[in-house]
Amino acid sequence: MSDVKRVVLAYSGGLDTSVILKWLATEYQCEVVTFTADLGQGEELEPARAKAELMGVRPEYIFIDDLREEFVRDYVMPMMRSNALYEGLYLLGTSIARPLIAKRQIEIARQVGADAVSHGATGKGNDQVRFELGYYALAPDIRVIAPWREWDLTSRTRLIEYAEQHQIPVPKDKRGESPFSTDANLLHTSSEGKVLEDPWDEVPDYVYSRTDDPVTAPDVPEEITIDFERGDAVAVNGEGLSPATLLAKLNELGKRHGIGRLDLVENRFVGMKSRGMYETPGGTIYHLAHRGIEQITLDRGAMHLKDELAPRYAELIYNGLWFSPEREMLQAAIDHSQHKVSGTVRLKLFKGSVFVTGRRSPYSLYSEKVVTFEDDAGAYDQRDAAGFIKLNALRLRLLGRRDGL
Amino acid sequence: MSDVKRVVLAYSGGLDTSVILKWLATEYQCEVVTFTADLGQGEELEPARAKAELMGVRPEYIFIDDLREEFVRDYVMPMMRSNALYEGLYLLGTSIARPLIAKRQIEIARQVGADAVSHGATGKGNDQVRFELGYYALAPDIRVIAPWREWDLTSRTRLIEYAEQHQIPVPKDKRGESPFSTDANLLHTSSEGKVLEDPWDEVPDYVYSRTDDPVTAPDVPEEITIDFERGDAVAVNGEGLSPATLLAKLNELGKRHGIGRLDLVENRFVGMKSRGMYETPGGTIYHLAHRGIEQITLDRGAMHLKDELAPRYAELIYNGLWFSPEREMLQAAIDHSQHKVSGTVRLKLFKGSVFVTGRRSPYSLYSEKVVTFEDDAGAYDQRDAAGFIKLNALRLRLLGRRDGL
Amino acid sequence: MSDVKRVVLAYSGGLDTSVILKWLATEYQCEVVTFTADLGQGEELEPARAKAELMGVRPEYIFIDDLREEFVRDYVMPMMRSNALYEGLYLLGTSIARPLIAKRQIEIARQVGADAVSHGATGKGNDQVRFELGYYALAPDIRVIAPWREWDLTSRTRLIEYAEQHQIPVPKDKRGESPFSTDANLLHTSSEGKVLEDPWDEVPDYVYSRTDDPVTAPDVPEEITIDFERGDAVAVNGEGLSPATLLAKLNELGKRHGIGRLDLVENRFVGMKSRGMYETPGGTIYHLAHRGIEQITLDRGAMHLKDELAPRYAELIYNGLWFSPEREMLQAAIDHSQHKVSGTVRLKLFKGSVFVTGRRSPYSLYSEKVVTFEDDAGAYDQRDAAGFIKLNALRLRLLGRRDGL
Amino acid sequence: MSDVKRVVLAYSGGLDTSVILKWLATEYQCEVVTFTADLGQGEELEPARAKAELMGVRPEYIFIDDLREEFVRDYVMPMMRSNALYEGLYLLGTSIARPLIAKRQIEIARQVGADAVSHGATGKGNDQVRFELGYYALAPDIRVIAPWREWDLTSRTRLIEYAEQHQIPVPKDKRGESPFSTDANLLHTSSEGKVLEDPWDEVPDYVYSRTDDPVTAPDVPEEITIDFERGDAVAVNGEGLSPATLLAKLNELGKRHGIGRLDLVENRFVGMKSRGMYETPGGTIYHLAHRGIEQITLDRGAMHLKDELAPRYAELIYNGLWFSPEREMLQAAIDHSQHKVSGTVRLKLFKGSVFVTGRRSPYSLYSEKVVTFEDDAGAYDQRDAAGFIKLNALRLRLLGRRDGL
Repeated sequence: MSDVKRVVLAYSGGLDTSVILKWLATEYQCEVVTFTADLGQGEELEPARAKAELMGVRPEYIFIDDLREEFVRDYVMPMMRSNALYEGLYLLGTSIARPLIAKRQIEIARQVGADAVSHGATGKGNDQVRFELGYYALAPDIRVIAPWREWDLTSRTRLIEYAEQHQIPVPKDKRGESPFSTDANLLHTSSEGKVLEDPWDEVPDYVYSRTDDPVTAPDVPEEITIDFERGDAVAVNGEGLSPATLLAKLNELGKRHGIGRLDLVENRFVGMKSRGMYETPGGTIYHLAHRGIEQITLDRGAMHLKDELAPRYAELIYNGLWFSPEREMLQAAIDHSQHKVSGTVRLKLFKGSVFVTGRRSPYSLYSEKVVTFEDDAGAYDQRDAAGFIKLNALRLRLLGRRDGL
Repeated sequence: MSDVKRVVLAYSGGLDTSVILKWLATEYQCEVVTFTADLGQGEELEPARAKAELMGVRPEYIFIDDLREEFVRDYVMPMMRSNALYEGLYLLGTSIARPLIAKRQIEIARQVGADAVSHGATGKGNDQVRFELGYYALAPDIRVIAPWREWDLTSRTRLIEYAEQHQIPVPKDKRGESPFSTDANLLHTSSEGKVLEDPWDEVPDYVYSRTDDPVTAPDVPEEITIDFERGDAVAVNGEGLSPATLLAKLNELGKRHGIGRLDLVENRFVGMKSRGMYETPGGTIYHLAHRGIEQITLDRGAMHLKDELAPRYAELIYNGLWFSPEREMLQAAIDHSQHKVSGTVRLKLFKGSVFVTGRRSPYSLYSEKVVTFEDDAGAYDQRDAAGFIKLNALRLRLLGRRDGL
Repeated sequence: MSDVKRVVLAYSGGLDTSVILKWLATEYQCEVVTFTADLGQGEELEPARAKAELMGVRPEYIFIDDLREEFVRDYVMPMMRSNALYEGLYLLGTSIARPLIAKRQIEIARQVGADAVSHGATGKGNDQVRFELGYYALAPDIRVIAPWREWDLTSRTRLIEYAEQHQIPVPKDKRGESPFSTDANLLHTSSEGKVLEDPWDEVPDYVYSRTDDPVTAPDVPEEITIDFERGDAVAVNGEGLSPATLLAKLNELGKRHGIGRLDLVENRFVGMKSRGMYETPGGTIYHLAHRGIEQITLDRGAMHLKDELAPRYAELIYNGLWFSPEREMLQAAIDHSQHKVSGTVRLKLFKGSVFVTGRRSPYSLYSEKVVTFEDDAGAYDQRDAAGFIKLNALRLRLLGRRDGL
Repeated sequence: MSDVKRVVLAYSGGLDTSVILKWLATEYQCEVVTFTADLGQGEELEPARAKAELMGVRPEYIFIDDLREEFVRDYVMPMMRSNALYEGLYLLGTSIARPLIAKRQIEIARQVGADAVSHGATGKGNDQVRFELGYYALAPDIRVIAPWREWDLTSRTRLIEYAEQHQIPVPKDKRGESPFSTDANLLHTSSEGKVLEDPWDEVPDYVYSRTDDPVTAPDVPEEITIDFERGDAVAVNGEGLSPATLLAKLNELGKRHGIGRLDLVENRFVGMKSRGMYETPGGTIYHLAHRGIEQITLDRGAMHLKDELAPRYAELIYNGLWFSPEREMLQAAIDHSQHKVSGTVRLKLFKGSVFVTGRRSPYSLYSEKVVTFEDDAGAYDQRDAAGFIKLNALRLRLLGRRDGL
């Protein structure tokens, strides 16, 4: 395995990826380049730099990037245009972050002349697939190292032993078994494992970190507005915001009102079912608001086609196929529908719920004149409906006659 | 038009269908048979009998049927198996009731030797389509009379004049303009028109009739369980219930907790957008519980196929195509997936929200042994993931090489 | 009906549209503008001008346009990118011409200040729908006049009487009943009606006009090549050709070898089944050649998505929804896939058959190195397949265990 | 690896599986059970028995089954109901045979108490996946041995050396390299590899084995009829035939007329493109005849839904997912549509082409009375078309108005 010279590691600064850092350097006798991304996970990143330095990474090989705006603008928002929900419910908060990390790792690998990339995802999960499909799509001949599938540090005890043997600091709270594991970014926090493994057991209160308890949330609904332009949110309560600050603002609102909690048993791409708990406060508001503005600005044909394509699109993102021709084709179709998805949605947030209460748009297709119960001054001729029904019924009548009805 | 001898009218006993009754008898010089169905709309039906008699309908031609069990068992529950949501949000409460009414009208027409059927739906809505596609599918050569598309009683004033001229009692509250119109059955109540016609205006409080205000709903979550067998709910809190009583029980629970309110702008089959407010208290709980039990009992392949078919299935029901070969084909596919969708879901109801908090089943496909973060004793070989990823990546790598990445 | 001032008629110069011309002028007391398009139907157009003049149309209101290049470039080729086949077999030759005619009529209407458009399609067919959906999509408030749905000239005898009364020349061969009716353009000729109405009766030889009989076609296969660039054919046998001349060249080749005959019973949008005979000589070759070049240049994900979308796309075109958001969305997805669909396909034409015998491309994704039965020098690790299969099987194994297999 | 006690090998009697037989016995020190299936590949099977005996397999552990009827009845015909074509062209002849072999192997394994199964498919192809997904779906805990992925006999030279060392007879024609490899059954013969590996090179004449050259095929078309009942063919030229004899009869007819040759570059499930040549003489006729009878007996809604589902269905079979919930769901939908797909189709076979020339059915939905150009006596009211078009256009007009057209 001595053929690897330089490897770019997706490095969080935590215990696991620190052990990986050391293990890569030792096992592969190669130079390790660390890449730490700020995707809005809410942790300080500078400690990661210090740790990497401490473990011998050359300063010029420590990459720490704030990717929050790119994340929301180029990944979250395009996905939100599709209204994608994996298995009907999940807003894909983890899945959508992986392609960006993979892309940036490959860019860094090219920049520093690395011949390999590595990540800290385990061999049972979806994230290994998402990282690696991203790597291979963007750099077909890159070498991928997945330590969790290779090494023999298969228990936490052995991992900690390894850390101690190699002078890797072990935080006190990592000594014992963590009761669950989490992943976080600007869109969501996911929790899974251990105390969540029995899908009949209720998720314990202490697992929630991104949302306040709906029970103790404010007793009075809060009304907000979101403005959309060409399918993307651009303002909250009238205040124009950049993509990341907008999502952060919605997260703050959603947190306060206990919005976006989801207890889910889902089907992993690798073939097993897993139980997760997701908190997507701002994303949940965003999703419903986007549906709201589409209701008045999207034509029926466009909306129904989108609705039929959305499950497939969601599956592709979940499975790590962001960088695939078929995801791009679907994106092209979806984006084509969004040119006039502009306007304002008003919502009420209250103890875990989001209610769309109004929507308006300069591009509204809703016509009070046509729909009204009142006299419509000839905008719609009710007699047309007779012919419409007759011809839609024709095939059913021929069928009924044949079948002797 | 004197060629119609006997017509079966879907008769609610209200002012509009009473005017239609008289108008049919007058205009077509034909015998009118009334059919009034109890679909759980929550109104007394015997007054409809008295009114019909008063207006000269022969007693043996007055049909009043309690269809609540058939409605929930043969229409609502099969639809719920699909997880259908029209335009991503709407549980299809009105749409799903129409085919049953049409079917029963045709049965009665055959029984009494009627040559025509009639309904009170207007010429702008979806219901005329749903009724008539049902009629024609089941009786291809039936004559259909849609008074709202034929007569000249195009304003409420003229309708009331006509009623007075013909000794039809006009309830006091019908003299003025109703601020909105409603439809109700065991699954939902819909409201639309007038005060709801501006989609930016919030739905006034007085429009809600089936759900308590989430703000004033109980401050403490209520935990319930629902048992499923082969895809259908069979018990609430351990108590076995018939389809209609089960849905009524969920309605009661949903009402108390303010669950199932939806403010929607939707696309009608007849080509216009309309704004409606729906209250589906029990159905909302049912829908989420069904998703919950499927999470552990449905295979991924089955679930994803269902998710891709559901928008089409929903569209068919919305458009009135319940009695169509393609709806039946989709139903066959969906029903095939439900054989092992049995078990129990636990939920919390709280101020407008439904949270699934646990699910268990003797047919669970969830395997703690496989998914666990702990040692899985060889249930899953993490090295398999490497090959899995490599082959899934192969086409992307060939693509990347070609495209010079 | 005197409110129409000026109407643009899609005018072929034949008997039927000449009668319509006169009827419009008489019934609506309006000025008639004629529009005659050369879509490659193989008829002289100047006689249409003479006839129109004869019937009193002002010279500046006679429009005769050669639309052949636009037709193939902007309609036929985009459609061919999708591999669309209506009901599995039909290359949509009539359907794809209608939107262009509608578009040009509307342009002329704007140019001459007309307030109405008219066409000669009957009330039972698809073409009325295709024309009128095109008109309304491009000019929402245009007045549409469909004489066949309005007038009382419901038999050929009465039509001819009307012609004679109004000094419209009746060609001798139009006096008797034509044994079938046809439509032609550069892509195909369709025949239907009369002698074709019994779907059990074989299509008589005299109905074929665009293709030689396969039985008498050359006894020796002819080999040709077609070059593609970005999804569209650009050369035949190495000779670069414009869209229309390329299709004409393929038509000539296809005709000679008896290619592209199709006897079909199809489902019309208006709800009935009809039997047609289509001859699409060049289009059939084009379709198979396009499939051939895609085989080596399209990724699997892109190809399978295209294959799933194609039936819907075909249905939209058949139903006249070319100018609809959903057709445009699908086109955006399809076009996105064609960037590298370039290269050369070699085919053999022989007595009704087209055989793709070779394909090559600078963008080929086919890798002999990977696929070879010989030693592949490590391009593919067969052991990866084990993991790939194991994880794809995992869900099936969990299912099998649950179901007691 | 000594933990395997008894293995059921899919044994053809050829050199490769004979080497596997010996290798399994040697490497795994286990008892080998051979299973040889007659799927209509056109080879004597008794020599396989003699060879197996010669190599030491106990007579009671030699299974030779004639599965032809089961193959056509339970696999080919259900697939044909779907009109499935993989990547638009391929009739799935190899794919559809694998599940049956896998199923029978598992049955035998249960019968003889075997703990493992084995096959002779290589590590690059689809067949390994199809066999193994079948095994795992039907026997989740079975041990699967894929020698081609395990052993070091990676060249033909080494394979032959191994054979000679172990007294396995090597047929003379196997000493040199075969210029291509084949698979055959009652539905088709496939050829791939070596001389076919350059997709630009024409398939050499000597590769074809199941079809006569269209050029030398009879100069006169042959007319045949096929009768269908409930979606399946039951008679040829009026003669009732069992499933396998019917397909054999169509093969004979197709062979004579050079029908069913396909040169294809396809996408394998394992991620690479491969080039194959398929001969499906009878299947090609069957496929088109089935389309023909559906044209008059299937409602449009059913047909279009089938057409949209078919690419997915084809993909599932190609990928080896016959025994999966989603294939079964799609089958349920497809089968539901076939109840009235009965009647007769007339076809002409001529030099590589199949022409449907007529179809009739007691369940025909084709109505001459409705479709006729002649007076239809009121079967269809052309004025209905106006309303039909107006309401279908409504959304497009609202869109056009909004977009300022």
